[in-house]
Amino acid sequence: MARHEHNNIQLDAEGRLRHFLSIEGLDRELLTRILDTAESFAALPGRPVKKVPALRGRVITNLFFETSTRTRTTFELAAKRLSADVLNFNVSTSATAKGETLLDTLRNIEAMHSEMFIVRHSQSGAAHFIARHAAPGVSVINAGDGRHAHPTQAMLDMFTIRRHKGDFTPLRVAIVGDVLHSRVARSQILALNTLGVTEVRVIGPHTLIPTEARTLGVHVYHDLDEGLREVDVVIMLRLQKERMDGALLPSEEEYFRLYGLTNERLERARPDAIVMHPGPMNRGVEMDSEVADGPRSVILQQVSYGIAVRMAVMSMCIQTHAESPA
Amino acid sequence: MARHEHNNIQLDAEGRLRHFLSIEGLDRELLTRILDTAESFAALPGRPVKKVPALRGRVITNLFFETSTRTRTTFELAAKRLSADVLNFNVSTSATAKGETLLDTLRNIEAMHSEMFIVRHSQSGAAHFIARHAAPGVSVINAGDGRHAHPTQAMLDMFTIRRHKGDFTPLRVAIVGDVLHSRVARSQILALNTLGVTEVRVIGPHTLIPTEARTLGVHVYHDLDEGLREVDVVIMLRLQKERMDGALLPSEEEYFRLYGLTNERLERARPDAIVMHPGPMNRGVEMDSEVADGPRSVILQQVSYGIAVRMAVMSMCIQTHAESPA
Amino acid sequence: MARHEHNNIQLDAEGRLRHFLSIEGLDRELLTRILDTAESFAALPGRPVKKVPALRGRVITNLFFETSTRTRTTFELAAKRLSADVLNFNVSTSATAKGETLLDTLRNIEAMHSEMFIVRHSQSGAAHFIARHAAPGVSVINAGDGRHAHPTQAMLDMFTIRRHKGDFTPLRVAIVGDVLHSRVARSQILALNTLGVTEVRVIGPHTLIPTEARTLGVHVYHDLDEGLREVDVVIMLRLQKERMDGALLPSEEEYFRLYGLTNERLERARPDAIVMHPGPMNRGVEMDSEVADGPRSVILQQVSYGIAVRMAVMSMCIQTHAESPA
Repeated sequence: MARHEHNNIQLDAEGRLRHFLSIEGLDRELLTRILDTAESFAALPGRPVKKVPALRGRVITNLFFETSTRTRTTFELAAKRLSADVLNFNVSTSATAKGETLLDTLRNIEAMHSEMFIVRHSQSGAAHFIARHAAPGVSVINAGDGRHAHPTQAMLDMFTIRRHKGDFTPLRVAIVGDVLHSRVARSQILALNTLGVTEVRVIGPHTLIPTEARTLGVHVYHDLDEGLREVDVVIMLRLQKERMDGALLPSEEEYFRLYGLTNERLERARPDAIVMHPGPMNRGVEMDSEVADGPRSVILQQVSYGIAVRMAVMSMCIQTHAESPA
Repeated sequence: MARHEHNNIQLDAEGRLRHFLSIEGLDRELLTRILDTAESFAALPGRPVKKVPALRGRVITNLFFETSTRTRTTFELAAKRLSADVLNFNVSTSATAKGETLLDTLRNIEAMHSEMFIVRHSQSGAAHFIARHAAPGVSVINAGDGRHAHPTQAMLDMFTIRRHKGDFTPLRVAIVGDVLHSRVARSQILALNTLGVTEVRVIGPHTLIPTEARTLGVHVYHDLDEGLREVDVVIMLRLQKERMDGALLPSEEEYFRLYGLTNERLERARPDAIVMHPGPMNRGVEMDSEVADGPRSVILQQVSYGIAVRMAVMSMCIQTHAESPA
Repeated sequence: MARHEHNNIQLDAEGRLRHFLSIEGLDRELLTRILDTAESFAALPGRPVKKVPALRGRVITNLFFETSTRTRTTFELAAKRLSADVLNFNVSTSATAKGETLLDTLRNIEAMHSEMFIVRHSQSGAAHFIARHAAPGVSVINAGDGRHAHPTQAMLDMFTIRRHKGDFTPLRVAIVGDVLHSRVARSQILALNTLGVTEVRVIGPHTLIPTEARTLGVHVYHDLDEGLREVDVVIMLRLQKERMDGALLPSEEEYFRLYGLTNERLERARPDAIVMHPGPMNRGVEMDSEVADGPRSVILQQVSYGIAVRMAVMSMCIQTHAESPA
């Protein structure tokens, strides 16, 4: 493989994935390779993901500064499917509480021969910080940092779209809701544009669409009916109930009236449009149950594909160590 | 196997175990098959249970709405002996706390390819509810729901009795204590009667024996000495200390004086009678230490056999999926 | 092997390790055997420890009465490298909270076929107590009890020293800091003397050196510069910040001025002296970062070697069961 000139911390000198921190800086070829690798792990529908010996004897550490049972569990399952050993570090209860610095905690877990950190943190940039300080043989995967990025979620969404739509090129995709505070939306927009869809739309009230949205390569809509017109994919974002307290949002009922997805509204989209949600869902707020449980919803398939996509990212990163001359 | 006509949610169309929720509705043949399967896992005394590859690659989820380190641990150990991967979901800290409904949580864990839920809940009927809504390939095992049932505990008790007594038919069994609030007692009574013992007795104060007790097919005694006469098996129930606060019970000392088991009292039973307790035990309340640690106590064997019995139930249920045409 | 006459609970009738509770009562030959066994597990630098099937199917229980994520994790990792199944019992949340006695909890976990307990407790003697009451086929490893002992920490320190210095005989070792409250120091002193070093020094303020120190076979220094002169190994102890509140210590700044390790001070030691610390470290209190991250620091290697040393102790103890005639 040709030697790449780049200063992207996510890639090694050969341009292969070493960390997975953000969609930014990854090209279409690499994202496609992740999807293809995930395809090799995803089993037939209804069948459990196969257990493979790829990472037997490797140690992977969940380093969660923010509680998230679901995300931690899917990473843990993905690691176990790859036959790795998993350490769970809930950082609030560990040595950092005893006055040790974050970097000392990292060095210590590295010294226990952990080759990968799955990092979840409430501050944007935390995973990059850890990756910049990681030892040479260690990979970092961002499992969500502040409002910045949640790239494995975005990739499992891309995987779900590709499984249902085949080709990204002709697609129109609408992302609906609290785009301003969503690391998921940010990663999705980057991934969709990198994979070459025709159009990405974001739909929501003025208070929840970041002012720089247009610079991300999206079309902004404030009217749901208008924004849904002729789209192939509808991605509903989770509404953080905390936002209600501030002045950013009216009541839940009012939000649902304006931006909640119903079967009636879904008729604006293309007849074969699919509906996605990263979970956990607030029924009756982001969408009603008819849509959530209806034939166009692929929400549970997103969860299933999440295991295969995380297996893909984990195995690609660790493969990189093994083959490195270092 | 002949096609059964039944509407028992626990059995599939072929009459094989799919869920294990309650002893109710299971016949002698099926209970015996559970005991025989457990026998194949239970090793020689003093030897660890063998690790078998039966469920390699399968995912089993502990879904505990009520904390119980001991019960969770025995299920986890049983799953590991079968080479399954285990997820532990402490529901209070997971997504249901974020406003997701219980059924959405279930669907999500199913989407992670979990084929079995071990459910512990403080409300009677919770495991049935989850089983009724489980996806086709998913089994539910009741690890205790409210005052209703604790069927794996009952089956490990049956296993312990059969190991020591061989045949159930001639046996007289006394269950002593807080029958009213005990899901364990309810399941034991059903199992003992289904397996065809000669007589089941319940012994306790009027306040702790349910008024409908006689309809369960038991003889009720309020005097311990009388009730223990000529029994082969004495099962002491755990006394919930919380009951003391209400008007249901006198002091612990008074309870022990009336219903506490001592060696002297045990002389009313048959010379080879065994003493059981589901744990955790309150020494000096339900029985004194001479009995608990004495030659007739099989309390620790109950714990050991619990692993093999849970392995049996788990593997029988999952086997059912594998062989299902679905 | 000759039959030993001894009443050391740690050894079986053949003089082999059954429990690992304290360095006390173990001879040089046995300590050396632990180091040699660890050597067989420790891989080449930078390579993960190999996964071996030595304890496949065995159950090992972490019984932690005191939270310690790091120590628990290293034991868990060591157990997994040996292919054992690990149970984590956080005792404050388990059945002992329901009124069960400690010994009943033990008997119950033994009945689940656990063959080894890793015990951490805030009271000196707790691990011995549990070992005295353990069933014949069960081993106990002390993971730190009160101020008494932390023998696996001491042995990983010895392993680190041997890897860097080869032979113990000519060495001068200084232990600096809060010796009075340190179970680590107590175990290190015993191990160093048993392995035959030339001299063990302890350095610290009068308030932190136990009055009986000299009876342990050490030389006491209250001046750091003097104590470091010509030593081969410097072991810095962790300073419990709680001590500051009492009258035992001046401020952190004052402590660092008197006993904090700097590169300048380290010049008193031999040119090839190594610097150790059991972690977690308080930078700027016990030593400054120049030393901690400098070329003489072997602090992270201590952590790495900890896995191999714990694998050694675990496998030696369980091996003993397997070969016992009982």
